[in-house]
Amino acid sequence: MKKALEFEIHDRLPGALARTGTITTPHGIIQTPAFIPVGTKATLKALTPEQLSETGAQAVLANAYHLYLRPGHDIIDQAGGLNEFMHWDKPTFTDSGGFQVMSLGVGFKKIIDMDGKTDERPLGKKEKLAWIDNDGVKFKSHLDGSMHKFTPELSMQIQHGIGADITFAFDELTTLHHNYEYQVESLHERTHPWAVRSLVEHQRLNEVRTHRPPQALFGVVQGANYEDLRRECSKFLGAMDFDGYGLGGAFTKENIGEITGWMCQELPENKPRHMLGISEPDDIFDCIENGADTFDCVSPARVGRNGALYTKFGRVNVTRAQYATDFTSFDADCDCYTCQNFTSAYLHHLFKSGELLSNTLATIHNERFIIRLVDDIRRSISDGTFYDFKQVFLNNYYSK
Amino acid sequence: MKKALEFEIHDRLPGALARTGTITTPHGIIQTPAFIPVGTKATLKALTPEQLSETGAQAVLANAYHLYLRPGHDIIDQAGGLNEFMHWDKPTFTDSGGFQVMSLGVGFKKIIDMDGKTDERPLGKKEKLAWIDNDGVKFKSHLDGSMHKFTPELSMQIQHGIGADITFAFDELTTLHHNYEYQVESLHERTHPWAVRSLVEHQRLNEVRTHRPPQALFGVVQGANYEDLRRECSKFLGAMDFDGYGLGGAFTKENIGEITGWMCQELPENKPRHMLGISEPDDIFDCIENGADTFDCVSPARVGRNGALYTKFGRVNVTRAQYATDFTSFDADCDCYTCQNFTSAYLHHLFKSGELLSNTLATIHNERFIIRLVDDIRRSISDGTFYDFKQVFLNNYYSK
Repeated sequence: MKKALEFEIHDRLPGALARTGTITTPHGIIQTPAFIPVGTKATLKALTPEQLSETGAQAVLANAYHLYLRPGHDIIDQAGGLNEFMHWDKPTFTDSGGFQVMSLGVGFKKIIDMDGKTDERPLGKKEKLAWIDNDGVKFKSHLDGSMHKFTPELSMQIQHGIGADITFAFDELTTLHHNYEYQVESLHERTHPWAVRSLVEHQRLNEVRTHRPPQALFGVVQGANYEDLRRECSKFLGAMDFDGYGLGGAFTKENIGEITGWMCQELPENKPRHMLGISEPDDIFDCIENGADTFDCVSPARVGRNGALYTKFGRVNVTRAQYATDFTSFDADCDCYTCQNFTSAYLHHLFKSGELLSNTLATIHNERFIIRLVDDIRRSISDGTFYDFKQVFLNNYYSK
Repeated sequence: MKKALEFEIHDRLPGALARTGTITTPHGIIQTPAFIPVGTKATLKALTPEQLSETGAQAVLANAYHLYLRPGHDIIDQAGGLNEFMHWDKPTFTDSGGFQVMSLGVGFKKIIDMDGKTDERPLGKKEKLAWIDNDGVKFKSHLDGSMHKFTPELSMQIQHGIGADITFAFDELTTLHHNYEYQVESLHERTHPWAVRSLVEHQRLNEVRTHRPPQALFGVVQGANYEDLRRECSKFLGAMDFDGYGLGGAFTKENIGEITGWMCQELPENKPRHMLGISEPDDIFDCIENGADTFDCVSPARVGRNGALYTKFGRVNVTRAQYATDFTSFDADCDCYTCQNFTSAYLHHLFKSGELLSNTLATIHNERFIIRLVDDIRRSISDGTFYDFKQVFLNNYYSK
């Protein structure tokens, strides 16, 4: 059988875990480190696939939970898979839905209910929209309140129906509010066994579904901010036949680099590592330095739609009054379509008028900004200027 | 001084008033008949200028009322004019704001208040947001309720600040609910004198503003459904030094062709005629047959954003359940970006999910559909197949 994924390491950062590489998938290659924009519902909000491609995006990440609920993974399967469905010819990822069934499943409050035992905020009966046991997660749809249950097997069936090149094992997302005992129980009784069940079902599906390109599966490391649990989980999953690893769960800004290092020191070196849901520049530098290869996050697009645009001096809101009569590019250093063709005054006008094009232009700029940052980090690893680049970039970015 | 506009007639339809031609403006040419998409606030909603251009749009029409209120015509002037501001390199139109101050000015209810004398629906005191006298129109902003007054002079100053290639004289829009006496009074006391005042101010501005390309001014014919008034107004304006004419005011579907004919029989043959706010296929055929050269309308984009897409068999809503699993192009005959690259199932998914890309893809298809229809009518006039084409097209379009 054709291999689902190959990973080649090119350059390494002396004295650190950072490296550059190439991930090869049935839909093309990803030069790493790389930032992967998120197209939750099989669309990067407000962008055509061509516009997304022009930002330099090498791949897109969609979401199993949302696509299971609507339109249904069977429909994407019938369409010929995610690439065909959304008219995107580059690599694709899907996350497992684990995060969403636990966060969206409790009514967008991002509180995960564990029978009220461990969460700092006690949940009223009405708010309880997700129930976790060792078999899986029952949850109410955020769309219509209907009841559903995700198991590792169903998550893999959904992800194979969607047909992304890179899929993720179904895991339990814990938060920093859960105590050590809960984290241990979660790892041993759910995240570890669920990883095994995900892998078994994934391998079965890859064997049955011969009409489709083989898909890759990343195991997802949990363990919150506990070094022993992070290392244990990394070793446990690292010994299994995953094609790569997701770095999941809860971090604080202070320790995200350190935690990434614990995981990447234990994980097999020759497999790619994907940091889930991170796009803040300082976090990106820290994670790459400690061994992360790829990133995804909705944030660049989401804050952009609210008018907050990245600059080398941090995020700036283009709705500020000063931009009403600023007839220069918003970011003179930027090579994106938006900055090359429109002024701050025009962007300001679009946002103030609530015009749909504001979403498109802001998203293009923000995705391009983060993608280019990670591309520049890649180059800085190759040419040995990583630490200089990091210092200059972060000094500017957090100077205001 | 360089001429603001030239119009050359190429082919004529024997026995009718239809013709093909070329309008030449400082920002390029328009092959007529042509459909001109509307970018009310200096943006075609949800489309980049490049996407709009790819629909075959030869020009775009923006609105003086909206741009006066936000961002202000002075800001567009400082930006270098509408083309520079919105990054559009083809011809531009602005309408005078006359329609908007009278329709939006009364709270989007499209009821024009004339002290309750003539309108069928009596207006409560709170609804009265526009006051018309022989000097101009006072109105409350639909944005913040602030008071403003448009006069012919201000409308021209706004339109010169915006800097479109083709501008329109400030007129009074009457409705079919106004009686004959009111229509006569409106023509003689407002629309005719306002046309004179618009032209005088326009010519003054063209002379003073030598740093900008000269702009063209179209007089706007009113007279509702009264043949004598339509002919009188056409003769009155036709004798003046306008660069072209707007065909304005109220019609019913039954008589739109006939009324267009009354006007075009009286208007100078060698000047272009723009039918304001029309895009229904049968209306377009009738108006072209009776001498209209160009059209604008928000409708293709607006209905598209609601999921109603044009097909040769009429408008069809892609949110219908049947499209959930339709993995073919929505319109197999269509050469637009949307139909060439996406399936009905994907469009259905985007609409059902409320995804922003639905606006973009639907607008592209609908604008392309109407633009191509008018392009096809142009060719049918040139090659003598107009009546055959009309019969086949309308039989299909209204068959369901």
